[in-house]
Amino acid sequence: MRRTVFDADHEAFRASARAFVDRELRPRQEEFARQRAIDRETWRAAGRQGLLGLLVPEQYGGADAGDYRFTAVLAEELAKLSMAFASSFTIHCEVVAPYLVELATEEQRRRWLPRFCAGDLVAAIGMTEPSAGSDLAALRTTAVRDGAHWVLNGSKTFITNGHGADLVVVAARTGPGAGAKGITLFAVEAGTPGFERGRKLDKVGQHEADTAELFFLDVRIPAANVLGEVGRGFVHMMERLPQERVGAAVSNLAHAAQILDETLEYARERRAFGQPIGSFQYNKFRLAELVTQVEVTRAFVDSCVAAHVTGELSAVDAAKAKWWSAQVQNEVLDACVQLHGGYGYMNEYRVARAWQDARVTKIWAGSNEIMKELIGRDLGL
Amino acid sequence: MRRTVFDADHEAFRASARAFVDRELRPRQEEFARQRAIDRETWRAAGRQGLLGLLVPEQYGGADAGDYRFTAVLAEELAKLSMAFASSFTIHCEVVAPYLVELATEEQRRRWLPRFCAGDLVAAIGMTEPSAGSDLAALRTTAVRDGAHWVLNGSKTFITNGHGADLVVVAARTGPGAGAKGITLFAVEAGTPGFERGRKLDKVGQHEADTAELFFLDVRIPAANVLGEVGRGFVHMMERLPQERVGAAVSNLAHAAQILDETLEYARERRAFGQPIGSFQYNKFRLAELVTQVEVTRAFVDSCVAAHVTGELSAVDAAKAKWWSAQVQNEVLDACVQLHGGYGYMNEYRVARAWQDARVTKIWAGSNEIMKELIGRDLGL
Amino acid sequence: MRRTVFDADHEAFRASARAFVDRELRPRQEEFARQRAIDRETWRAAGRQGLLGLLVPEQYGGADAGDYRFTAVLAEELAKLSMAFASSFTIHCEVVAPYLVELATEEQRRRWLPRFCAGDLVAAIGMTEPSAGSDLAALRTTAVRDGAHWVLNGSKTFITNGHGADLVVVAARTGPGAGAKGITLFAVEAGTPGFERGRKLDKVGQHEADTAELFFLDVRIPAANVLGEVGRGFVHMMERLPQERVGAAVSNLAHAAQILDETLEYARERRAFGQPIGSFQYNKFRLAELVTQVEVTRAFVDSCVAAHVTGELSAVDAAKAKWWSAQVQNEVLDACVQLHGGYGYMNEYRVARAWQDARVTKIWAGSNEIMKELIGRDLGL
Amino acid sequence: MRRTVFDADHEAFRASARAFVDRELRPRQEEFARQRAIDRETWRAAGRQGLLGLLVPEQYGGADAGDYRFTAVLAEELAKLSMAFASSFTIHCEVVAPYLVELATEEQRRRWLPRFCAGDLVAAIGMTEPSAGSDLAALRTTAVRDGAHWVLNGSKTFITNGHGADLVVVAARTGPGAGAKGITLFAVEAGTPGFERGRKLDKVGQHEADTAELFFLDVRIPAANVLGEVGRGFVHMMERLPQERVGAAVSNLAHAAQILDETLEYARERRAFGQPIGSFQYNKFRLAELVTQVEVTRAFVDSCVAAHVTGELSAVDAAKAKWWSAQVQNEVLDACVQLHGGYGYMNEYRVARAWQDARVTKIWAGSNEIMKELIGRDLGL
Repeated sequence: MRRTVFDADHEAFRASARAFVDRELRPRQEEFARQRAIDRETWRAAGRQGLLGLLVPEQYGGADAGDYRFTAVLAEELAKLSMAFASSFTIHCEVVAPYLVELATEEQRRRWLPRFCAGDLVAAIGMTEPSAGSDLAALRTTAVRDGAHWVLNGSKTFITNGHGADLVVVAARTGPGAGAKGITLFAVEAGTPGFERGRKLDKVGQHEADTAELFFLDVRIPAANVLGEVGRGFVHMMERLPQERVGAAVSNLAHAAQILDETLEYARERRAFGQPIGSFQYNKFRLAELVTQVEVTRAFVDSCVAAHVTGELSAVDAAKAKWWSAQVQNEVLDACVQLHGGYGYMNEYRVARAWQDARVTKIWAGSNEIMKELIGRDLGL
Repeated sequence: MRRTVFDADHEAFRASARAFVDRELRPRQEEFARQRAIDRETWRAAGRQGLLGLLVPEQYGGADAGDYRFTAVLAEELAKLSMAFASSFTIHCEVVAPYLVELATEEQRRRWLPRFCAGDLVAAIGMTEPSAGSDLAALRTTAVRDGAHWVLNGSKTFITNGHGADLVVVAARTGPGAGAKGITLFAVEAGTPGFERGRKLDKVGQHEADTAELFFLDVRIPAANVLGEVGRGFVHMMERLPQERVGAAVSNLAHAAQILDETLEYARERRAFGQPIGSFQYNKFRLAELVTQVEVTRAFVDSCVAAHVTGELSAVDAAKAKWWSAQVQNEVLDACVQLHGGYGYMNEYRVARAWQDARVTKIWAGSNEIMKELIGRDLGL
Repeated sequence: MRRTVFDADHEAFRASARAFVDRELRPRQEEFARQRAIDRETWRAAGRQGLLGLLVPEQYGGADAGDYRFTAVLAEELAKLSMAFASSFTIHCEVVAPYLVELATEEQRRRWLPRFCAGDLVAAIGMTEPSAGSDLAALRTTAVRDGAHWVLNGSKTFITNGHGADLVVVAARTGPGAGAKGITLFAVEAGTPGFERGRKLDKVGQHEADTAELFFLDVRIPAANVLGEVGRGFVHMMERLPQERVGAAVSNLAHAAQILDETLEYARERRAFGQPIGSFQYNKFRLAELVTQVEVTRAFVDSCVAAHVTGELSAVDAAKAKWWSAQVQNEVLDACVQLHGGYGYMNEYRVARAWQDARVTKIWAGSNEIMKELIGRDLGL
Repeated sequence: MRRTVFDADHEAFRASARAFVDRELRPRQEEFARQRAIDRETWRAAGRQGLLGLLVPEQYGGADAGDYRFTAVLAEELAKLSMAFASSFTIHCEVVAPYLVELATEEQRRRWLPRFCAGDLVAAIGMTEPSAGSDLAALRTTAVRDGAHWVLNGSKTFITNGHGADLVVVAARTGPGAGAKGITLFAVEAGTPGFERGRKLDKVGQHEADTAELFFLDVRIPAANVLGEVGRGFVHMMERLPQERVGAAVSNLAHAAQILDETLEYARERRAFGQPIGSFQYNKFRLAELVTQVEVTRAFVDSCVAAHVTGELSAVDAAKAKWWSAQVQNEVLDACVQLHGGYGYMNEYRVARAWQDARVTKIWAGSNEIMKELIGRDLGL
């Protein structure tokens, strides 16, 4: 069915994003996967093409699109090649950008955003901790005021872009009490003494993205690096969840849809027992189901994108999009692997990588279980 | 999430449709269920309120809405009370109407449509045969030309409104060859000698709707009762499938959504082991999943409705909406029964009836398997 | 795969049980369904054939089989005709029998068991209450000692055989404290003043079985009708759960297996689009899946039966058999309905009735959710 | 539930198998995974411990257990550490052994079996071809008689142990006609000119096992290396399927059960939101479901093992065990990953590896779809 959420401008931008993907990422995908990171030159190429500052005002070097749909288009084009590219870039330009644009002071914006847009400053965000998982209220990383500085201690894990990031938005406990209050956000810059990274984590998939553990040992953060209000970090994060979640849904679905398209092509071509494997009724029905699932989900995700553009998307509706798309993505990819037979288990086949890449989407950024908890609460249960 | 497919006019009409439901149907639902049919007076009440001719031009007594969304709103309001009301009325005003409006001659329109709109002439459509199920190409009912008449022989089954209908659109084989060609549509009127009805079928649910087998023994149909072109009946039916299927999807989903809402209410109120049953995490997550499923599906069905309004809805996309909504409806209702515990198995509870009512939607009007076959073919498989 | 749990004696008994089913139940099934109860003469016929006292020592009129497998065979043969027959008879001879045999005093045994075995005394058990569902600890029915009597007040619901039973084992609160302690079992006999039955409940299915609400208003129960120890009713019930649950599993599975067999036959015979519907690959695979599910489940249920015979079956393992078999039964029957197309929705087809009959097995006798709670606790969670 | 298929002898052997696993495999698992193969010394250690000749008569150096259950025990203990160890060793001692014992001539037995039992000759089997997948009838590898030799041309893929094997049982077309007839089995020995191996395949998981493509270019096989009868290779393979499939089922299930046990332990220990994650009701129910699934499946697989011991296991019943266990294994492992949260996506966690290892079991050795096709045919569909 024809999508109605994008107009001609978005589609023009899509061509440009796709050109970037084809020129800068596709040829070097294996190289980035081997080195477990996208290299800096590629970030800068993205910057030059204006992809990193889609949500950043022009005066700070951004494209000031003022329209989330361009970001969604970029996420789709990245995810079509690889979930890892989508996650690495969107953490920067979709997840972190709003913190630096909306919460930062004028001085901070000038300090960071031009380099952020240029790809000279790669950003990450550090919420999850080894002992706490999705439980933000149980954060153990602390920051204690000491004159013009805050002294940060603790660790973060599963941080996308964490190994190479120049700036990490870190949530730390600054208030004495328990719970969600008393959390403050800090911009921690690479090179600050006491800020160390662990090795790149050996993930199941998404090898092109660098993911790392971060350690903070008496890291002295200048007070000028506090992001937003002291003690309101939890609220700051909550307010940005709709965009983070709808962005996750956009990538999840574009990824699944692309691999399904490729699998359809394979099912039309590959023959067994004298006929195309897709023409066996069981496979044919399975593919019909998968296509339906993807299109049904797309209608919902697109409607979330449209609602987000007008500021109407609630965090709970975004949570629905997030968990559902992750579930569909994983079901679709598992079926696509199966349709490839033995080749679906070989890493040289895109479907095999895609299946491994996708598994984390049911877990990260608030697991599907957390999403259901939030939805359940919203239902008054 | 806010729905965008309907505007204020549709919502105003919704209030009117709901008033009809509350005034004419809700108080007599048990009575209609017992007598296995809606009574004629109720059809006429619907006619007086202008509900039956939503797709019929004004000059023939219709409301000439020129906008399918009013029909969709009516279907939703009917389905919220009972699937049987939705199916009985929509067969008439959504499925049969286009045959009488678009295929009928001017003479035929004048002959039938005013009474059709008034509820004086209740309509049904006879495609399915005992031996053929969904296989239209295997139709055994025949019509042979004899002077100014056609002589009809055969039988039809599972015909909604079949027992009480005044006019039945009947597909019969008029061509000698096999297959889809050589099928013609006839308007068979009650009282024509040789046209007999079997008893009302003893269905699992949808007791308010009358469903019957129809028998044709040397029924002489005047040539003036041929609908559309001789030999093009199959094409005539195919062209009307998008509307029939999207209409099914609209009812399926509205029905499931309504019962889910009632179940949510129940889960908030009913207590066990000292707390509301909906507050048990397993139930809470289950309800969160069901609400997500319904909302995701609604986005797709609404986008199909919007596409149908602009004439862009393909039969295949409508097939996706039809099978998916039936699947979701049945899953949702099964879960709703479970959440009601033992009461979910008692017919005095709406959820029990709804569960029984819904089961047929995966089967009728082209089973879910047929839909998947069509989608698979459309994918080139 | 060949079953190993039964030997030649059991199979000989199976022939006898089947003869009873074919002679006494099958011809009158519709009649019993209409009157919402099995008639007394049929209970007596079962008694004459020795089916009711399989678990009762000979001196009290029973068959003293001393081997649960005969009861399992009976349950299978009943369930193959209808779940309602299985539930009605097994409540009597499998669920209630152990209370009367193991907990009753010698005097009580002589008073009740001969008539119990003859079918002159039909038994039921009353645990569930309108407000409490599966939560035995929240029982509100109370019994207060008054001289040589106990005065019973409260109500029970969803009681199989409840409308016609001559003796109902009723759990009531006799202790002041909360929770599971302080519950006592009473044998309440028909005709005791203040013991009233509601109408037969209008269930979704299982129409051959009578199910009713029971009301106790100042019912004076002689102390001689206390079953087991005062205050230990909860323990008495818990100890009998393995047999009740494995019995449920046996019926669930036999029922599903039988309808699946009939559906296989239908799928081999019924033709559409020029071939047997079972030969369409999608249907073929679906049937292969269903057969596998049934056989896999049978291996487990049979191993539970074998373990129960040697006294090794835990309540938790029986809980696994109970919920899993109910789940499989319902999945199998839903698929069988679908394979029947429109006929699957007609009550004259056995599959339609079976689908409705089966739905309650995921709910009653401890819902599937309760079973999972118990298993989870047993896992130390 | 207590398993009944094994007796004390089997359990004693289990201790010995486990000791081998703990001594020889566990400490070197990472090393084998890195080098994508088990090293030869380890094969010899297995040989010294008598593990490789469990199905080989004593006169040829085997243990002549004469009881398949010892092999099943070995497979379980291997699978508990890693699917790759199970597949690598069982290809040798469970899948290939019967070919060399039952089909081989006396001369062949003496030539190969002592080294086979000692681990000096590692075996593989080559059925699957790049273009044919599961379609044995479409084999393209050919063997043409040329005097005292056969000249083999073609290729095989996805061959477990293929890279390091000293002897590969290869199926080739020797008859001119199409279809299953005209296939002959050859023992192709390493070092034969024209027999080449491709690189070790880059699989999604099972990295400890070597898997390779094999190429045959004018390979001259002595006629003395024909296994079984010329032209009856298809029958020879079919007759050995029950053991191959039940063996797959045994490994699949043991693997899933072990990881589930470890996940249960994790769910009891790991805390979030102030409580063990396994104590959240949703997780608790999920784990209860998984444990049930595993135990239900175990009852069936064990009954298949018992039937195989008495020669009663049909290829179709084994097919049921094979596909069902693979399905359950994959569902269980996916849920186990989810329960581990982000750690479930890290390769250093066993659950992450296990999830990747398991994916192929739904595909290889006859995909789940092929199994359903066979079962469907057996049902007369």
